[in-house]
Amino acid sequence: MALDEGLNALTELLGDRLSRSAGDRDQHGRNETWFALSLPDAVAYPETTQEVSELVKICARHDIPITPWGTGTSLEGHAVPIRGGVSLDMSRMNGVLEVLSDDMQVRVQPGVTRQALNEDLRATGLFFPVDPGANASLGGMAATRASGTTTVRYGSMRDNVAALEVVLADGRIIRTGSRAKKSSAGYDLTALMVGSEGTLGIITELTLRLHGQPEAVSSAVCAFDTLEAAVETVQLTIQMGIPMARIEFVDALTAEIFNEANGTAFPHKPHLMIEFHGSPEGVAEASQRFGEVVAEMGGADFEWATTTEARNALWKMRHGAYPASIAHRPGCMGLVTDICVPISRLAEAVSEMRAEIDAAGLIGPIVGHVGDGNFHSVLLLDPNDADEMARAKALSGKMAKRALELGGTVTGEHGIGMGKLGYMRAEHGAGWDVMSTLKHALDPQNILNPGKLVEQPE
Amino acid sequence: MALDEGLNALTELLGDRLSRSAGDRDQHGRNETWFALSLPDAVAYPETTQEVSELVKICARHDIPITPWGTGTSLEGHAVPIRGGVSLDMSRMNGVLEVLSDDMQVRVQPGVTRQALNEDLRATGLFFPVDPGANASLGGMAATRASGTTTVRYGSMRDNVAALEVVLADGRIIRTGSRAKKSSAGYDLTALMVGSEGTLGIITELTLRLHGQPEAVSSAVCAFDTLEAAVETVQLTIQMGIPMARIEFVDALTAEIFNEANGTAFPHKPHLMIEFHGSPEGVAEASQRFGEVVAEMGGADFEWATTTEARNALWKMRHGAYPASIAHRPGCMGLVTDICVPISRLAEAVSEMRAEIDAAGLIGPIVGHVGDGNFHSVLLLDPNDADEMARAKALSGKMAKRALELGGTVTGEHGIGMGKLGYMRAEHGAGWDVMSTLKHALDPQNILNPGKLVEQPE
Ligand SMILES: Cc1cc2nc3c(=O)[nH]c(=O)nc-3n(C[C@H](O)[C@H](O)[C@H](O)COP(=O)(O)OP(=O)(O)OC[C@H]3O[C@@H](n4cnc5c(N)ncnc54)[C@H](O)[C@@H]3O)c2cc1C
Ligand SMILES: Cc1cc2nc3c(=O)[nH]c(=O)nc-3n(C[C@H](O)[C@H](O)[C@H](O)COP(=O)(O)OP(=O)(O)OC[C@H]3O[C@@H](n4cnc5c(N)ncnc54)[C@H](O)[C@@H]3O)c2cc1C
Repeated sequence: MALDEGLNALTELLGDRLSRSAGDRDQHGRNETWFALSLPDAVAYPETTQEVSELVKICARHDIPITPWGTGTSLEGHAVPIRGGVSLDMSRMNGVLEVLSDDMQVRVQPGVTRQALNEDLRATGLFFPVDPGANASLGGMAATRASGTTTVRYGSMRDNVAALEVVLADGRIIRTGSRAKKSSAGYDLTALMVGSEGTLGIITELTLRLHGQPEAVSSAVCAFDTLEAAVETVQLTIQMGIPMARIEFVDALTAEIFNEANGTAFPHKPHLMIEFHGSPEGVAEASQRFGEVVAEMGGADFEWATTTEARNALWKMRHGAYPASIAHRPGCMGLVTDICVPISRLAEAVSEMRAEIDAAGLIGPIVGHVGDGNFHSVLLLDPNDADEMARAKALSGKMAKRALELGGTVTGEHGIGMGKLGYMRAEHGAGWDVMSTLKHALDPQNILNPGKLVEQPE
Repeated sequence: MALDEGLNALTELLGDRLSRSAGDRDQHGRNETWFALSLPDAVAYPETTQEVSELVKICARHDIPITPWGTGTSLEGHAVPIRGGVSLDMSRMNGVLEVLSDDMQVRVQPGVTRQALNEDLRATGLFFPVDPGANASLGGMAATRASGTTTVRYGSMRDNVAALEVVLADGRIIRTGSRAKKSSAGYDLTALMVGSEGTLGIITELTLRLHGQPEAVSSAVCAFDTLEAAVETVQLTIQMGIPMARIEFVDALTAEIFNEANGTAFPHKPHLMIEFHGSPEGVAEASQRFGEVVAEMGGADFEWATTTEARNALWKMRHGAYPASIAHRPGCMGLVTDICVPISRLAEAVSEMRAEIDAAGLIGPIVGHVGDGNFHSVLLLDPNDADEMARAKALSGKMAKRALELGGTVTGEHGIGMGKLGYMRAEHGAGWDVMSTLKHALDPQNILNPGKLVEQPE
């Protein structure tokens, strides 16, 4: 009843931008990985902040859950509307509002994707660095505190969001942060919203930090005999202060998968993929020093990508690792682990992961943003094999526990959603209750993305 | 009654580390600037987290306010216990607990000062960069989200605190963050606590990020004919992507004050003080490019500080700008402004400030961390001249408003305390109510540093 009344009011507000079609609902009930389909009652496509605010007020009045939707690429079931209600699709709020070149900032709407933004910026000499594998929306990336291959140099969404406009659970519109480079004016509401996964407010505008397109770029890929040698090379490179823009690890199975998907001919060995940004002299110096470390660690098949095309192909391959892995086992679905540990414990964490996957009899290539201590295994699972799924979940839980023992975190970048709820108590102790207290204070009706981040797993 | 009972219970807990002496109370009722003396009823000197937790529980039971105290150098009356109660002096919790060299981190207690920490780190090849002018405590620096001369390169406390241990208003002890370089595991409680000025919890331990001591360092100072030329040099240097470790502006009056305090012989002109960190080649390249910008902008009297001693003298002089300014007008007290604007608006903001100070007939040298768009005027006021104080406050308010119009913030680094409460509504709108909601959720009794940050000014 309340639901129907509410949806009618939303139709009055949005006209045919409130969809109850089976197709729209189905599309917004799915996810990129193993979580069950769960349909929203309707999908809303707002075009302005004011509309979002009105929509939230109507939903609050009728007690209808709202689950924001960026591009739906999150990996822990974040955007699945598990209590029904409205899926709030932000894709029509996709304007690049203002490029502030002199301040190296840009104002965007949340539905702009990272690739669309960089297309738009191409001629300015500036770029936005955060690059999850998927072409995600900037609103979704802020909401999950996303990061990517360049985070080792340019930071994650935590570091690259200067200010936000947010619609709260009661429809109030607030602006957090400012265009200044720093501020001590009270609680850091920007940081509170970044990573809140749509549970505290709906991001309707972002002011992002940009960076100068590097004068010189140089990328390389090289093979190692053992996983340990590759990861120790990373640790050494960091300790020596060699300034990388990217340093990615892929294991032997991933090298094989790259060959299958891209027709490349990498040896079936662990590899590092690296990139330097800077002045021509700076890049040359860093490349040379890195080459020396690699030689010392027994790295081989060193290959520099000298042309822009070769570099783009390299990183396109890296960004395509997830779909390529899925294709490696036809008909499979993926369960992606995401632990992040202190750099000093990285080599042991990655080798343990490799050993555990093998011991569990699972197929799981390993890739990682190793410069941050963050790495993933994509566990390739037969959707009809409940036992395999159970072993995968057990493995994932075991490695999450190891990450905490090593001083790390259960999720470096993918976030909590539903999939990681079971580890929140172990990671945060009473801090998890504090998160609940904050959630309850800002959304007492629990209408914003209920069932995620702060709730006990079901 | 409740107070006496409570203080008795605290004496039972702390013995003579709960002081009710006039001397201790007086010392903890003062501040560095113009706020009135306001005495605590007692001063507590805890030595362990457990003691802090017990103390908070006792105070909660007896409704006694608690105002944490680091070194008392904050500039907006933050640490003044305006409702009496307990001043919680953290100076005995001053251990450097663990240097984690491989991860470039350190665990410290909150009472460690920034200089003590760097003394301790000297032999490790690492250092902690955040350097407010005062030798502040790391707990106080985190609580005010402090920054300093090196923030342009290494970030502020927002960027350099990895994890915290915090005692909440009900005595619960939580740990926020982790030793991993990044995480998406829920709300960013670390960022919420950094900058919360003792109103949300008491920081009892910090894990800080360290940086490698630079291989090569080069510093210089140079004079400009006009304030505009100096500030535009900064803007240009940033736009060109020249990587500075420090870039500080001092105006003509400050140059004069430096001469008085240090026996130097700077021309009475605006100056920039700059430093580069990196490899010898990188530093040489940056210095050369910067020299070209300066020449183009008509800078003169360029002087490189080549020895470590000369460099130390330079930055000691800069860090001593506040006391030197106070000494410039014997018997005066200081009111320090702290706006921060987008870099593109910096030149106009600084010139307006200069013009406003002159128009108001005040004495006010200007200095600034201009690479961040942040600058201060130290208004030197006769404590017996109410009219002068009124003009100074009016000026400060006018410039705060200008900062907001220019897209900036009313405080780049000093924080809110009591002094900036009157600008919070203008800066944050409904966001300030959100801050109150968070405060109320985490400290419903309002015992943690009451009267600061979230309360209506009296
Ligand atoms: C192939 C592949 C590779 C990936 N690689 C990476 C990687 O390298 N690094 C990484 O961090 N992630 C990675 N991911 C995960 C995913 O891309 C990120 O989590 C991304 O940030 C999600 O953005 P989205 O727009 O798809 O958000 P969605 O999945 O639509 O939503 C994510 C969460 O944010 C909320 N949300 C969305 N928009 C808003 C808004 N405007 N306001 C408030 N809340 C909102 C949703 O409710 C949901 O809780 C990868 C995923 C895939 C499929
Ligand atoms: C000469 C001079 C130069 C300065 N230059 C700068 C500058 O360049 N940059 C800058 O940012 N600031 C500067 N300041 C201001 C001041 O040094 C900073 O605000 C500093 O961070 C305060 O640290 P403190 O230890 O003195 O804290 P205090 O003044 O003792 O306390 C500050 C606030 O933090 C709270 N607090 C203290 N310890 C804790 C704890 N353990 N847990 C929770 N809350 C706590 C207090 O209750 C209070 O609200 C300067 C001050 C002076 C006098």
